[in-house]
Amino acid sequence: MVGRLIQTAKSAYQFPLIFKQLWHTPLVQAPNQEIVYRDLRRFTYRQIRDRIGRLASALSKAGVEAGDTVGVLDWDSHRFLEAFFAIPMMGAVLQTVNVRLSPEQIAYTIDHAGSSTLLVNDEFVGLLEGLKSQLPKVKRLIVMSDAPVPQTGSLSFIGEYENLLSAASPDYDFPDFDENTQATTFYTTGTTGLPKGVYYSHRQLVLHTLAGLAMFGIAGTQGRFSRDDVYMPITPMFHVHAWGFPWSATLAGAKQVYPGRYEPAMLVKLIKDEGVTFTHGVPTILRMLLEAAAKANVDLKGLKMVIGGSALPKALAKQALAAGIDIFAGYGMSETGPLAAVSHVRSKDLSGDSEGEVEFRTRAGMAGPLVDLRIVDDDMKDVPHDGKSSGEIVLRAPWLTQGYFNNPESSEQLWAGGYLHTSDIAVVSPDGYVHITDRMKDVIKTGGEWVSSLQIEDLISQCAGVSDAAVIGVKDDKWGERPLALVVKQASETNDVSATIIKDHLKVFADKGVISKYGIPEQILFIETIPKTSVGKINKKLLRERYGNM
Amino acid sequence: MVGRLIQTAKSAYQFPLIFKQLWHTPLVQAPNQEIVYRDLRRFTYRQIRDRIGRLASALSKAGVEAGDTVGVLDWDSHRFLEAFFAIPMMGAVLQTVNVRLSPEQIAYTIDHAGSSTLLVNDEFVGLLEGLKSQLPKVKRLIVMSDAPVPQTGSLSFIGEYENLLSAASPDYDFPDFDENTQATTFYTTGTTGLPKGVYYSHRQLVLHTLAGLAMFGIAGTQGRFSRDDVYMPITPMFHVHAWGFPWSATLAGAKQVYPGRYEPAMLVKLIKDEGVTFTHGVPTILRMLLEAAAKANVDLKGLKMVIGGSALPKALAKQALAAGIDIFAGYGMSETGPLAAVSHVRSKDLSGDSEGEVEFRTRAGMAGPLVDLRIVDDDMKDVPHDGKSSGEIVLRAPWLTQGYFNNPESSEQLWAGGYLHTSDIAVVSPDGYVHITDRMKDVIKTGGEWVSSLQIEDLISQCAGVSDAAVIGVKDDKWGERPLALVVKQASETNDVSATIIKDHLKVFADKGVISKYGIPEQILFIETIPKTSVGKINKKLLRERYGNM
Repeated sequence: MVGRLIQTAKSAYQFPLIFKQLWHTPLVQAPNQEIVYRDLRRFTYRQIRDRIGRLASALSKAGVEAGDTVGVLDWDSHRFLEAFFAIPMMGAVLQTVNVRLSPEQIAYTIDHAGSSTLLVNDEFVGLLEGLKSQLPKVKRLIVMSDAPVPQTGSLSFIGEYENLLSAASPDYDFPDFDENTQATTFYTTGTTGLPKGVYYSHRQLVLHTLAGLAMFGIAGTQGRFSRDDVYMPITPMFHVHAWGFPWSATLAGAKQVYPGRYEPAMLVKLIKDEGVTFTHGVPTILRMLLEAAAKANVDLKGLKMVIGGSALPKALAKQALAAGIDIFAGYGMSETGPLAAVSHVRSKDLSGDSEGEVEFRTRAGMAGPLVDLRIVDDDMKDVPHDGKSSGEIVLRAPWLTQGYFNNPESSEQLWAGGYLHTSDIAVVSPDGYVHITDRMKDVIKTGGEWVSSLQIEDLISQCAGVSDAAVIGVKDDKWGERPLALVVKQASETNDVSATIIKDHLKVFADKGVISKYGIPEQILFIETIPKTSVGKINKKLLRERYGNM
Repeated sequence: MVGRLIQTAKSAYQFPLIFKQLWHTPLVQAPNQEIVYRDLRRFTYRQIRDRIGRLASALSKAGVEAGDTVGVLDWDSHRFLEAFFAIPMMGAVLQTVNVRLSPEQIAYTIDHAGSSTLLVNDEFVGLLEGLKSQLPKVKRLIVMSDAPVPQTGSLSFIGEYENLLSAASPDYDFPDFDENTQATTFYTTGTTGLPKGVYYSHRQLVLHTLAGLAMFGIAGTQGRFSRDDVYMPITPMFHVHAWGFPWSATLAGAKQVYPGRYEPAMLVKLIKDEGVTFTHGVPTILRMLLEAAAKANVDLKGLKMVIGGSALPKALAKQALAAGIDIFAGYGMSETGPLAAVSHVRSKDLSGDSEGEVEFRTRAGMAGPLVDLRIVDDDMKDVPHDGKSSGEIVLRAPWLTQGYFNNPESSEQLWAGGYLHTSDIAVVSPDGYVHITDRMKDVIKTGGEWVSSLQIEDLISQCAGVSDAAVIGVKDDKWGERPLALVVKQASETNDVSATIIKDHLKVFADKGVISKYGIPEQILFIETIPKTSVGKINKKLLRERYGNM
């Protein structure tokens, strides 16, 4: 089956989907738009584009070539934004190093990715010093610092970032090349085994950027992103490209604010002083923001915030709505670019009643444009979109990772049957809202029934006096597995929450048929804190190690 | 220069940008959303997708194969929407035939495109009967009718559209194929020479669809398109894909209304009864709409309307604003997909004062995402973005036609220097608004100075008592050329507008330095009507023939 092919290769009208194309419109329409770094520095778009040319010139002079991998270890900064563009635009590969991993894992990911050049925030110089012997492929380092100080030690720094940029030409001639050229890589922080490298091409990320604007642009009256917005990430830039927003915001010509390391007081100050209107983060960040804003007496009204990384608890969503935040969940993962779906709510479902709205705002929501989202059974057959039948979410989209770097076995599992397997269990309502009920491995199988750990966690977290909750399955001779709840109490002297209160709370939902009675845990343990992974997910692996044999 | 290529071909994660991918999200999220045809029929998205499968099955059974060209002669209908998808999704080429051309031109375009199958609204059957001898390549015809009647005559109809669909299977297996496969073709209605065929691939149009949503999605508070909108085209679907909105609206899952032949009373009735909120058209259509709404006592408040095809006159824009329409201009052409720019106005420039706002709303505005828009001098050097220096708009974007079908000479001219030449003269303001000052061939060169015919037309149309105006250059022994104004008076017994009044009106702007004093025409002729082309542009070729030697 062949239609009429239009030959477009190597002609003037050919337009490869590569990163440098993202700069056409912002440079014409928003040359004087602002990009702000903490309360320290301000740039215009024109200046940042100039610095991107300088960074490429400096890297090129230092010996970086197309096809090389360049790692960045930094908090969210204008420098990171410059690296987001300059490195891929040279034809090199940007590795965004997750600095929250353990030192051994950091060394592993840098070495496994084959990064030969590192841009390093001076905060991590000591760390790298200790890892030197594990980084045989690293040939050159550049130190980045808010207040440059001379570097000592044994690492072979070729210079300081600002000095190198000052000495370099802004007129780097970024080449055209095949849009399937690799642009980025980073490592997933799975709860089992070694970190796995995912990787993306220019074509994939340009499509992700454009689809991101379309996805947030077609929202109704809630949760939309426009060129009028002021964007600030509170999901780190090393984690899944900060959801691709640094590229999307640039393409839209919107004001951008980069907060450095996430310090609550600084975040709140930037939201207030710079008029931030759009951000994203994990639930823990939202909690921290609400507390810091209350402390600083800053009104968060009008802030739009997408929550991802782990489920948005209903109780927290209600708290955010009460603070005037337009709160909603996003759905995606390291392997998906990440944007797959977002809980935009149809205007008819925006009742203004927070009880009703959180039902919609905490879902995975609606798949983004072009995303082929299915929920399937074990045989890859579609389950009905009736709001009840559950299945695994499998995906296709133009921007999903094609596998794990140098890991053919895991890659094959990921793409079994021609779709990317998310391991998330969901239902889809007749009007198209996707609602995740659990992770496949977190489902608790008790007496032949499936109990959603996520749902029980969510219900427990709504019980008065509860600050945080996690539910895991523990072995049981009679039932196979039984749920165990680990609960953190709210810090208050008058807090009298108890296992009995929580069980009674759950019983109300069991009586209503919301959950099975088998979902009520016999064992409820009160602990100091729920351990989280480096990206803010509940660390169930650790919890299973600690409490799985109880 | 080669980076690290990611091989994506023929793998599960490969995702060609072909039309069938546009249906993933709407089928999940908006299966019951409505698509309405006049006051005659209503469908759900699910039903339309089902009919698209049936249409493909019927065409396939009739012998249509991938690579064939299928022409459609219809007004805007659900049937045309079905053809917009089914024909390209089969790997065949959709020719949208401009039924407003002369019979000879219609025959020429069908024959030149090589259409072998035609879907024909019964209104045009008589026309085709007369052209039969000029259509030797046409093998089969299908008649489309709101109220099917038996066809007589000598044309070889293979059936009636609804009957064929009823008998066909909805489960056509639309194949995957190369995204560079041709999807559509149609003919430009230039004012000189024979119509020229432009053509687009799946990749180009899928990117145009996505960029269209991003472009209108990132608008500030004005002129944006969302999934809450109700869309109705009033630019024909045969003309540059109705700006691609039928595809964009489908991808967004928005309600769609197709009005058939443009009858003012029906348009106004549909706007009112179906709650249409977003449309587009030429200035003439807007005038017609305003009159019809006033007559029917229908409030157009809240309607968003993009004006393209020819410049949006300020006086008309003011009238539309006064009627509560969110009016703004779009910029593009048959060769550009068409979306190139749109006059979205930054919130800071939305003063609420219509005098001030029309200055922004009538411009070409801001280029769409990924569009590489430059204004250049004769040597392809960029002119400054100072709001004063003018140059030709040249473009690159991922969705521009790669040339004219079987016309290498014109194609080469179009793409001279690696950019698509628009022949439009524009200035760009420092804050990035593009403002078209004239067409290259419509600029009047008088005594060594360039006078913009467009600007003089616009100013004359703002003079009280003037309904419409056109300005052309006429030969002059002393000055080379002089402007001649052709003016249509508003129909009113008390209208006392005269040549003297118009000249005095223009003199005010000359005194302010808005125009050169050489721009004031000595000759002002009052005529009955300004001739327009089939797409609503002033027919300057005809005017020059009639009045060029005065």
